[in-house]
Amino acid sequence: MNTSLNTQKALEGIVDAVATSYTLGRKIDSLESTALPNRRKIVEAISDLEHVCFMGFYSSETLSSVNLRHYISRHVYCASDILVGQIARALVVQRLGGGAPETVDLTQSEQIVTELMATLPELRAQLSLDVEAAFDGDPSAQSVEEIVFSYPAIQAITVYRIAHELYTRDVPMVPRIMAEHAHSITGIEIHPGAKIGQRFFVDHGTGVVIGETARIGDSVKLYQGVTLGALSLPRDAGGNVIRRAKRHPTIEDHVTIYANATILGGDTVIGAGSIIGANTWVTESVAPNTRVSYAAPDGGNQIRESLD
Amino acid sequence: MNTSLNTQKALEGIVDAVATSYTLGRKIDSLESTALPNRRKIVEAISDLEHVCFMGFYSSETLSSVNLRHYISRHVYCASDILVGQIARALVVQRLGGGAPETVDLTQSEQIVTELMATLPELRAQLSLDVEAAFDGDPSAQSVEEIVFSYPAIQAITVYRIAHELYTRDVPMVPRIMAEHAHSITGIEIHPGAKIGQRFFVDHGTGVVIGETARIGDSVKLYQGVTLGALSLPRDAGGNVIRRAKRHPTIEDHVTIYANATILGGDTVIGAGSIIGANTWVTESVAPNTRVSYAAPDGGNQIRESLD
Amino acid sequence: MNTSLNTQKALEGIVDAVATSYTLGRKIDSLESTALPNRRKIVEAISDLEHVCFMGFYSSETLSSVNLRHYISRHVYCASDILVGQIARALVVQRLGGGAPETVDLTQSEQIVTELMATLPELRAQLSLDVEAAFDGDPSAQSVEEIVFSYPAIQAITVYRIAHELYTRDVPMVPRIMAEHAHSITGIEIHPGAKIGQRFFVDHGTGVVIGETARIGDSVKLYQGVTLGALSLPRDAGGNVIRRAKRHPTIEDHVTIYANATILGGDTVIGAGSIIGANTWVTESVAPNTRVSYAAPDGGNQIRESLD
Amino acid sequence: MNTSLNTQKALEGIVDAVATSYTLGRKIDSLESTALPNRRKIVEAISDLEHVCFMGFYSSETLSSVNLRHYISRHVYCASDILVGQIARALVVQRLGGGAPETVDLTQSEQIVTELMATLPELRAQLSLDVEAAFDGDPSAQSVEEIVFSYPAIQAITVYRIAHELYTRDVPMVPRIMAEHAHSITGIEIHPGAKIGQRFFVDHGTGVVIGETARIGDSVKLYQGVTLGALSLPRDAGGNVIRRAKRHPTIEDHVTIYANATILGGDTVIGAGSIIGANTWVTESVAPNTRVSYAAPDGGNQIRESLD
Amino acid sequence: MNTSLNTQKALEGIVDAVATSYTLGRKIDSLESTALPNRRKIVEAISDLEHVCFMGFYSSETLSSVNLRHYISRHVYCASDILVGQIARALVVQRLGGGAPETVDLTQSEQIVTELMATLPELRAQLSLDVEAAFDGDPSAQSVEEIVFSYPAIQAITVYRIAHELYTRDVPMVPRIMAEHAHSITGIEIHPGAKIGQRFFVDHGTGVVIGETARIGDSVKLYQGVTLGALSLPRDAGGNVIRRAKRHPTIEDHVTIYANATILGGDTVIGAGSIIGANTWVTESVAPNTRVSYAAPDGGNQIRESLD
Amino acid sequence: MNTSLNTQKALEGIVDAVATSYTLGRKIDSLESTALPNRRKIVEAISDLEHVCFMGFYSSETLSSVNLRHYISRHVYCASDILVGQIARALVVQRLGGGAPETVDLTQSEQIVTELMATLPELRAQLSLDVEAAFDGDPSAQSVEEIVFSYPAIQAITVYRIAHELYTRDVPMVPRIMAEHAHSITGIEIHPGAKIGQRFFVDHGTGVVIGETARIGDSVKLYQGVTLGALSLPRDAGGNVIRRAKRHPTIEDHVTIYANATILGGDTVIGAGSIIGANTWVTESVAPNTRVSYAAPDGGNQIRESLD
Repeated sequence: MNTSLNTQKALEGIVDAVATSYTLGRKIDSLESTALPNRRKIVEAISDLEHVCFMGFYSSETLSSVNLRHYISRHVYCASDILVGQIARALVVQRLGGGAPETVDLTQSEQIVTELMATLPELRAQLSLDVEAAFDGDPSAQSVEEIVFSYPAIQAITVYRIAHELYTRDVPMVPRIMAEHAHSITGIEIHPGAKIGQRFFVDHGTGVVIGETARIGDSVKLYQGVTLGALSLPRDAGGNVIRRAKRHPTIEDHVTIYANATILGGDTVIGAGSIIGANTWVTESVAPNTRVSYAAPDGGNQIRESLD
Repeated sequence: MNTSLNTQKALEGIVDAVATSYTLGRKIDSLESTALPNRRKIVEAISDLEHVCFMGFYSSETLSSVNLRHYISRHVYCASDILVGQIARALVVQRLGGGAPETVDLTQSEQIVTELMATLPELRAQLSLDVEAAFDGDPSAQSVEEIVFSYPAIQAITVYRIAHELYTRDVPMVPRIMAEHAHSITGIEIHPGAKIGQRFFVDHGTGVVIGETARIGDSVKLYQGVTLGALSLPRDAGGNVIRRAKRHPTIEDHVTIYANATILGGDTVIGAGSIIGANTWVTESVAPNTRVSYAAPDGGNQIRESLD
Repeated sequence: MNTSLNTQKALEGIVDAVATSYTLGRKIDSLESTALPNRRKIVEAISDLEHVCFMGFYSSETLSSVNLRHYISRHVYCASDILVGQIARALVVQRLGGGAPETVDLTQSEQIVTELMATLPELRAQLSLDVEAAFDGDPSAQSVEEIVFSYPAIQAITVYRIAHELYTRDVPMVPRIMAEHAHSITGIEIHPGAKIGQRFFVDHGTGVVIGETARIGDSVKLYQGVTLGALSLPRDAGGNVIRRAKRHPTIEDHVTIYANATILGGDTVIGAGSIIGANTWVTESVAPNTRVSYAAPDGGNQIRESLD
Repeated sequence: MNTSLNTQKALEGIVDAVATSYTLGRKIDSLESTALPNRRKIVEAISDLEHVCFMGFYSSETLSSVNLRHYISRHVYCASDILVGQIARALVVQRLGGGAPETVDLTQSEQIVTELMATLPELRAQLSLDVEAAFDGDPSAQSVEEIVFSYPAIQAITVYRIAHELYTRDVPMVPRIMAEHAHSITGIEIHPGAKIGQRFFVDHGTGVVIGETARIGDSVKLYQGVTLGALSLPRDAGGNVIRRAKRHPTIEDHVTIYANATILGGDTVIGAGSIIGANTWVTESVAPNTRVSYAAPDGGNQIRESLD
Repeated sequence: MNTSLNTQKALEGIVDAVATSYTLGRKIDSLESTALPNRRKIVEAISDLEHVCFMGFYSSETLSSVNLRHYISRHVYCASDILVGQIARALVVQRLGGGAPETVDLTQSEQIVTELMATLPELRAQLSLDVEAAFDGDPSAQSVEEIVFSYPAIQAITVYRIAHELYTRDVPMVPRIMAEHAHSITGIEIHPGAKIGQRFFVDHGTGVVIGETARIGDSVKLYQGVTLGALSLPRDAGGNVIRRAKRHPTIEDHVTIYANATILGGDTVIGAGSIIGANTWVTESVAPNTRVSYAAPDGGNQIRESLD
Repeated sequence: MNTSLNTQKALEGIVDAVATSYTLGRKIDSLESTALPNRRKIVEAISDLEHVCFMGFYSSETLSSVNLRHYISRHVYCASDILVGQIARALVVQRLGGGAPETVDLTQSEQIVTELMATLPELRAQLSLDVEAAFDGDPSAQSVEEIVFSYPAIQAITVYRIAHELYTRDVPMVPRIMAEHAHSITGIEIHPGAKIGQRFFVDHGTGVVIGETARIGDSVKLYQGVTLGALSLPRDAGGNVIRRAKRHPTIEDHVTIYANATILGGDTVIGAGSIIGANTWVTESVAPNTRVSYAAPDGGNQIRESLD
């Protein structure tokens, strides 16, 4: 213990001052914490669902067809229990605008969670295709096992596909917390509102940003640093930001987008089969089967000068 | 246990060789670990201070005006105790250049920590504005709660504002450890030496780098991948790097900087109200109320060719 | 517990459906988890080896020349034991293609681990130089201690150098898991197959990608967002991707590559002493002692327009 | 994992059989666990209250008059929160006879807990006298600190005095759980219903049993193995056991009872100032200031015979 | 860290000396620890089986007839897995006399564990009767819940009944470890070899010892400190102790034995319906329906003398 | 959280009252906790030393002659570090009588700990004999492994032999804390001041009490409930208890003392080779080779009456 008596006395006054700072009525002065969703618990539920999707990779038990249902049920029950509670909180907070806690009705969140869980077999089918796409797309991958164990994209896509199911059921806050958890670990940020097709792959991934209203077709491959973003904030006549308007691009099937390319705008469509070069900046639509790139690294405004 | 007798014998020799490698007098051969600050403990203190700033969001207790002071005091006392000890270590190491540990005088670090704690009410006022700025600036945000829970920028800015208080009091090592902790989690690197005004927001954030001598005004908004960096290392007549010279840009009030823009140089000033486009590269000052962007994505050296 | 009886009944059906989804024979339906390497354990071994390399920085014990061997031996033994087991698993999985587990022969993995451990003194010599390079290269660094404690590059490079030793001994999966662990924490992705010389430094680091067949000389310095990537996937006559072919660039000694530069292609060589500017895109070789940059930020297709 | 497929199949049938065994309607087939008090949590609350009573002995913080209230409040709040919840459960279970859970009304348990907490200063006064009695009574005790740290009696008496407060307020189950916790650790079983005066001491203690309706005056000292028990179960006309009837002895002030003495019966009174010898068996009252012992170890039916 | 350099040097020599002390070939110098059963794991398995027996009391989940099988299966699988492994070790050690580890054959231990698990429904039936006996026998018990939660006898009997199943299948070491675990917590020592009928109850319990070859009928009740022990060690012609010979007493149905009674000898039979008084010492058989007690506490060699 | 606003307000007043109760100047009002020895840490050191004594039984590592020294050194270093610190605290408290903390001089405690550690090889020799004595003395023991794993006496004796070394070096508090830890787990209380010879065994053990000044020769065997106690407290002319005077009995070599026998008095000597029967009460010396027992269970004042 390093705090002397004098410091303790000073800290007493500081504690008072901080407590007083909570009486100013600002949003961050709310004391309703236990009515809010709990980030740690949501992360725990995500971990359970990742286990359910990849039992043979994550389990520390010896699995067999005989005991599999037991181990699945553990994770399904845990995740359900957490999500029913957390989603119910999020719905209350949304309805009350952060006001006083009330008795929480779990009916709606139970319905949502049951629906989410019912998508798990289909979710696994999609993830199987995503893993295949990763294997086909990366010459340095030696096995499917390596991909599941060491490719951040698989974790980011798994979490996205789960969070997306909640987003489409109008669950507030929880899907974003899930997405941000995956973002923190993988560096890949996929907004739960984005719509993404089959066989999706992101190589390396750090810095990828996929916006809320982006639409991505099948067999699309992205590299690190790619942004699918908005050109500007849509505002209504009164100047207020219009939330949920389409403001991020559409990427059609079989498109590849190389590192650090920036594609912006809700009306921008990258046509099927196109290849978007690294570092490019695209704010207008691209026809199908088009390659976009810099004319030549040496032929643009790039110069090379000797240092000798 | 997987190590056979033969391997054990080989490991014995290896342990000797490694021990011998610590006798070479290099900086990394120092054995003064317990005299050095402890990263894990500093992260713990940061977590306590984050709780103090957002009690109503992070606490797992039911808070009320009656019990709030108790819960604040827990975190304030814990953080103070840790930081007094860790800052004292850092000051000793700095003074001795990593030499032998001595009896540590806590007076100076107690003074610094008391000053830091006294800024907490003001810090909360600033963070309240930062959270508001985030809400106003992101159309996909549905509530303030969502922002505090799932926007990495809030964590990065909170840690920055705390670390900056220590930096301005010449505390070595500790503020950098704090900043790097936030960097690891959020992908946003803000050097504690930077000066940042009110209502600061970073959207998405992965890859943002804000250098030690950067100056940022009020109501500035950055997107992912923005660098506020140095053009070159300032050196003195003898060729030695000059530490702490102004080498990162100044960003005035109400500037927005889009994704992956790179702004370099200590004399570079981005005038108030300017908008810096995505992927731009700026090494000279920009007048107030200027938009900087590429002429047109198709009009530059970018080409589109059909793949059919 | 938030799950009602009705939900429980629904979950029963869902558990059945998920279990059924594991009978489809896809790669992700394998139940051989306990035969696979365990990510958590590998991360534990990495942590042990980081301790061995920087005992004086990480240890929470008071070290001395008398007791040093004991503390080294703890970490060396722990890491060896884990790695012998995990590498053996990876070798079996590779040989069987993910099939049924068999009795694992530890001889080969014991040999590999002993060799890895024997490199530790040399590894420490290299890391000492890397730390020195960081100190020399960053004017904001105040001490070597600060660098070891708060520079993500040091962690990324340490893990790379360990993983590389395993990669060169043809260990499957494990080195990638190690590299991805470092990537998740630091934002720096270095493929274990890359070859990197002495005094290597990465500043800031988020978004750096160094490909499997990249070759990097001595005294090279990279900034955040630099990609050393492939231009396209090499395929054989039958159209199959050729794994391990040289497809990433070569960076000679004393090269500096600024933020977000993208250098692509297995035949691309950046000559010794060159400086590659920020945001550049390089797909052809650069002669030694060349500076590559944009002609001028204002002189290219970048425009500045007033917003007044 | 050691369970083969065959065993797994056998276990499936066993799980079914065990589940079926829960449908037999016996008391132990109740599934209302979450409506029952939780032993682990009650033990946690006891630990908090032990801290409150002996802050200077148990705390790992540096206490001072300045910070004492903070540390007291932590433990008081934690203990209160747990006990309000657990006592409410116990009251519901008692009312319903173990039936279906209902919404729990906390008003009554809050009242009880507040009353318990309000006795803490008086409780500390009593414990202070108990500690003094221990020091005066044991020549092997070297300091008061030694007594608080290493005398099981102090823990047993502390828990008893707390549990007794709950017992007198008709709290079901919880006081017995507390008492049994202390019994498990110390070997001393004091029923929470017993009434015990000031300056109470138990030396060594293993095997001591003090029954529910025992009455013990001031300055009483017991040794290990002493039983204050019932002679027989009181039954009503119908042959049913009468619960809570006085069936354990009364021990007046200043009595000492040596090891393994057995004193039985609700009408048995050990008069003030008496000394009850080791191994004695007493079922009738003893006048004040009486010594009870065996005539002589050699003079009774004990024989000594040579083994030569 | 409190150890100075000088002490470290002394400790080095001590470590050598201790290591040398392991080369003396004594039983306690064996280094085969990983071939031995692991006490901590066995305790874990016992905890799982206690959960299975009293799901509604120990579970922290909301149980229902729908989900009960899942929660049972968790504990059954965990316990099985542990016990298969630990029993296999015990069998190997027994066969080899503590010699070198070998590949362990799990067949036999799987068979034993499956048999143990198959007894669980019957075990629960017995425990239900034991709990009833406790409720009927103790006037201070207010509910069945109180008994399961706070009567050490229930835990001791539960563990005994499980350990006995293993003892009768000739499992070495493991049942004793189980019994000693219960002894440590409850103060009640029941050797797994004892045979105990239905509706068994032990009140208070501290100090009870029930020997290996004791036989106890139905509806027997013991109080604290009762010993059912051996008179002397049976030896063969050569003077060697004969292990497993009947040397502890037989207690017939409906016997009550009061506190601290000592009953010794393999031929001693306490006839059905008898009552054995407190502190008595019995080494010869007692006819059915007999009360054994001291003539009178005052009428024997006990004296009362005034202290006035 | 179960505490309502009203209760919170009541608790505030209670916290004040409890804090006030710490200003009364009683022994239990001391706030010097961090200057006192820490029970939990001392228990940790004991655990380390138990490992050192029985490495092959407690270790979870695969031990060999090659790696043994490493594992011994871990436990020796840990235990030394803890004990040096805790003993130093105990010495300061003793010197100051619980007064204000001072800078602690570790020299004396380092000396004591080094001496304790140096006895470890001899301690192991003694424990080896104790284990042998247990095996020879208990017909239900099947192997030495079973004894080390499941006989409480081994743990009690191990802790006693360690604590005794500290007691003879006048260490206050710490040995008692060690002894009480063993007492809590095993039910066997051996005061660290007792002197106990070789080949000591305690069967069953619950309730055994061995006083501070007891002297026990070689090859002595005790059963449960045996007390070696004091007849009365020795007082000086002024009526003060004389601490450390001889007041517990002497037991010579080869004595067996059966269950619940009570032997009292500092001048009482049980001659070599004697057998003391169960439940006997001995306060005068017994000649060598004497059997002490009750004349006959039926021939004394014990009566048997029919219940028919």
